[in-house]
Amino acid sequence: MTPQQYEECLKACMECLEACNNCFDACLKEADVKMMAECIRLDRECADICAYAVQAMTRNSPFAKEICQLCAYICDHCAEECGKHDHDHCQRCAEACKKCADACRKMLA
Amino acid sequence: MTPQQYEECLKACMECLEACNNCFDACLKEADVKMMAECIRLDRECADICAYAVQAMTRNSPFAKEICQLCAYICDHCAEECGKHDHDHCQRCAEACKKCADACRKMLA
Amino acid sequence: MTPQQYEECLKACMECLEACNNCFDACLKEADVKMMAECIRLDRECADICAYAVQAMTRNSPFAKEICQLCAYICDHCAEECGKHDHDHCQRCAEACKKCADACRKMLA
Amino acid sequence: MTPQQYEECLKACMECLEACNNCFDACLKEADVKMMAECIRLDRECADICAYAVQAMTRNSPFAKEICQLCAYICDHCAEECGKHDHDHCQRCAEACKKCADACRKMLA
Repeated sequence: MTPQQYEECLKACMECLEACNNCFDACLKEADVKMMAECIRLDRECADICAYAVQAMTRNSPFAKEICQLCAYICDHCAEECGKHDHDHCQRCAEACKKCADACRKMLA
Repeated sequence: MTPQQYEECLKACMECLEACNNCFDACLKEADVKMMAECIRLDRECADICAYAVQAMTRNSPFAKEICQLCAYICDHCAEECGKHDHDHCQRCAEACKKCADACRKMLA
Repeated sequence: MTPQQYEECLKACMECLEACNNCFDACLKEADVKMMAECIRLDRECADICAYAVQAMTRNSPFAKEICQLCAYICDHCAEECGKHDHDHCQRCAEACKKCADACRKMLA
Repeated sequence: MTPQQYEECLKACMECLEACNNCFDACLKEADVKMMAECIRLDRECADICAYAVQAMTRNSPFAKEICQLCAYICDHCAEECGKHDHDHCQRCAEACKKCADACRKMLA
């Protein structure tokens, strides 16, 4: 089993990964892609660290805490960028990033 | 949103990723690690293709079907190897791999 | 050691990963990002399968051939898209994708 | 192009990824796998952070430095564990991990 203390964080990382990748796909289809360039970049960054954190926690990595600390940091940046845009996919992504950063920090505490 | 037709497959891939990584960790702690060597190897293979499939489906990859086809194939092999061992973590992993292979194939159909 | 028969393919995958990610970064900085949307999407797809193939070959994965077959297929698509654009980073990427697809297929033969 | 300041670090990460995965494969084939359990675990950890660092540097990630800092830390632990074992693949891996940790820290400075 995945260690108990990771449970909430794991769920938040999976949801954040999904929201970031959904946003990445939707941004690339927007009329004004240029405005979304930083969002596209950060969505990929954030999806990738979340995927890495999911792998780390489920395999009981000795570095799970350090990885989740980095995940919280990257989530903060993605939440900030996505939060600037009114698109539903951006707002949902910003929300998921904030929840994920919180869950990572709660787990670390 | 992740495309509707991926929903069940996405859930199965996430659960399979978790079961494979749980099994990887548990196998490395077994008294007889040598007996588990192929299981350890395939757990990593299967967790990695599941993580890749999760990323592909959530970003609406143009290659999601090809990736999930490969995922089903690797899941079959991991299910077969894990199914040989009586450990709970192996049995749970074999079960998750079978469900994931089924979900991938159902999505492809 | 990484199995001898993978040597050329491994090098081509590493170079393709680099060219795709370079192109991803450069496309996001272009004046006309909208025109590059499919290129950005495929650069990520192609970098990710190359990274996965590199991991598979170096760990002597039992699925290295199937993974490199998929890699060749995704490289073909990325080469086609990047080949449509005159930017240096796109042309370099198209070239690297073609070489990688060839190296994968040569290894499989 | 990948930013100039990453060049040496990128090369070291690619070589470390390869050495770690080679060691992972070889450890699973050893007569005494139990003795290699921690090495197997850390080889996977280290290969994965190196692959992640390679992706980050080549796509000019805004988080490349933070990721390479974590990479140096994980390399240190893998070098220490592999250094305990006399197998050629372990010694080569320990060497590659040390070089990678050094290259990451030199790039960060």
